[in-house]
Amino acid sequence: MPALLLACLGTAACSDEPLSNAAVMEALEETDWRQPDQGNLLYMRLPHGEIIIELAPGFAPENVANIKTLVRDQYFDNLAIIRSQDNYVVQWGDPAADEGQARPLGSAAETVSPEFYRSANGINIAVIDSRDAYADVVGFANGLPVGSDSDRVWLTHCYGMLGVARGVETDSGNGSSLYVVTGHAPRHLDRNITLAGRVLSGIENLTALPRGTGALGFYESADERTTIVNIRLGDEIAKEDRLNIDVMRTDTAAFADYVQSRTYRHEEWFVDPTGRIEICNINPPVRIN
Amino acid sequence: MPALLLACLGTAACSDEPLSNAAVMEALEETDWRQPDQGNLLYMRLPHGEIIIELAPGFAPENVANIKTLVRDQYFDNLAIIRSQDNYVVQWGDPAADEGQARPLGSAAETVSPEFYRSANGINIAVIDSRDAYADVVGFANGLPVGSDSDRVWLTHCYGMLGVARGVETDSGNGSSLYVVTGHAPRHLDRNITLAGRVLSGIENLTALPRGTGALGFYESADERTTIVNIRLGDEIAKEDRLNIDVMRTDTAAFADYVQSRTYRHEEWFVDPTGRIEICNINPPVRIN
Repeated sequence: MPALLLACLGTAACSDEPLSNAAVMEALEETDWRQPDQGNLLYMRLPHGEIIIELAPGFAPENVANIKTLVRDQYFDNLAIIRSQDNYVVQWGDPAADEGQARPLGSAAETVSPEFYRSANGINIAVIDSRDAYADVVGFANGLPVGSDSDRVWLTHCYGMLGVARGVETDSGNGSSLYVVTGHAPRHLDRNITLAGRVLSGIENLTALPRGTGALGFYESADERTTIVNIRLGDEIAKEDRLNIDVMRTDTAAFADYVQSRTYRHEEWFVDPTGRIEICNINPPVRIN
Repeated sequence: MPALLLACLGTAACSDEPLSNAAVMEALEETDWRQPDQGNLLYMRLPHGEIIIELAPGFAPENVANIKTLVRDQYFDNLAIIRSQDNYVVQWGDPAADEGQARPLGSAAETVSPEFYRSANGINIAVIDSRDAYADVVGFANGLPVGSDSDRVWLTHCYGMLGVARGVETDSGNGSSLYVVTGHAPRHLDRNITLAGRVLSGIENLTALPRGTGALGFYESADERTTIVNIRLGDEIAKEDRLNIDVMRTDTAAFADYVQSRTYRHEEWFVDPTGRIEICNINPPVRIN
């Protein structure tokens, strides 16, 4: 811990003299990391690699519960990546869903309440000192990027966030089709669709997929689609096969230092550090042990 | 043109009642489009597809001139994509440059003055009404996204922007290694490196490349790299082989309407349109005839 602390980032204290990113990472202690609950981790296996996603029951409890039901029912096994729209999203689900031959949802619900935002009550936000184009207040809560006004808190559509695709009806999303943000943050979607988690590892297995040639980046044929081998929850997997993964906590002085080091870039290369930062340019680090 | 105009976006007028995006696109007239000068277009041919990039001599005249010299000397032919770092950049150049076997630059300069920003004198900015995390003022100038303070204007690191890679020395970039932004806008690079253009077409031929497995996403072997077949300027290409491409002008009432339609989303799907927009979420449309 630095000797002198300043309340320089709203709710969190950070170093008097901005530290370099290397110095911040070097100074991290074990308590600055958290181990995600394996019961909240999706292990998504594609033929070419694995993606690990942490679900966000604190923000979207009903949607997360339905996603877990689908996963435990092995709903996604042998379904497919159905869409890759450049600078926007990769989406997966049942390619036959729009053709009247949809795989049954089993014990999962067909409609789920929209969880586009939640009450600000009981949510501690580590506020980031940033002028945000879309939200009055931005920061991190439960390890995830959020926007907020006086009453509400919502997850923000940063790169790597997991969303619950829906149709025009706000309760039409049920988790049987999910998407990950793979481009510049489409923040106009905030509060219009349920976000339910964040990719922790392996996002390149989604982002480097060929773009779909149909409208909105949908794939037009089975040949173009990537099959999902399976999706499992961490607690369904044998202990020795689980990923030993840590995520930097966002409610610590060390995280405030981390954000500060990304705001005031000390590296020799920078000649004109901006001294500013935007919420989606902060990605809480992950380490795989 | 709408009957009633309001000065709703700073320098540009736009409709009293926000129009839908479809209505804006429908109402466009020929004068709302511009045809880029073929002498400023790079045609970058990869084995799997072509990328068209418009150079920005108004912002980086010396760097653009050096890039053109390199291209006319066919410098890039059979060089390679050397890097794809997820959520950041794709970069190309001479894989042997760091091994003492660099291809000679011929008549091009080894060092070029940094053009990280330019004087605001003589630049008309169509200001976007947005709280920007990094710049006091943002908007479009000469068709490109810019940030500005009272004295200076600089291109912003939005998705698809072309940059001139450099080392620690600010004049060490010369255009022999170039990058394109392929992730959430890394705006902390603004005013620290020269931007020199924007991809108009074919960016998916860069963004869907496999990510490099080395540090910073550099490819570690020749096998992993994609060879550049060639790069040509449009005015070097036979007329019948040039792309007939138009870009929406950014200094028109129609563009202000376009921005407004992206700010106030009218589509039925949106239940809580943000009424806000961020500079890098505005991509001036391109049409290929």
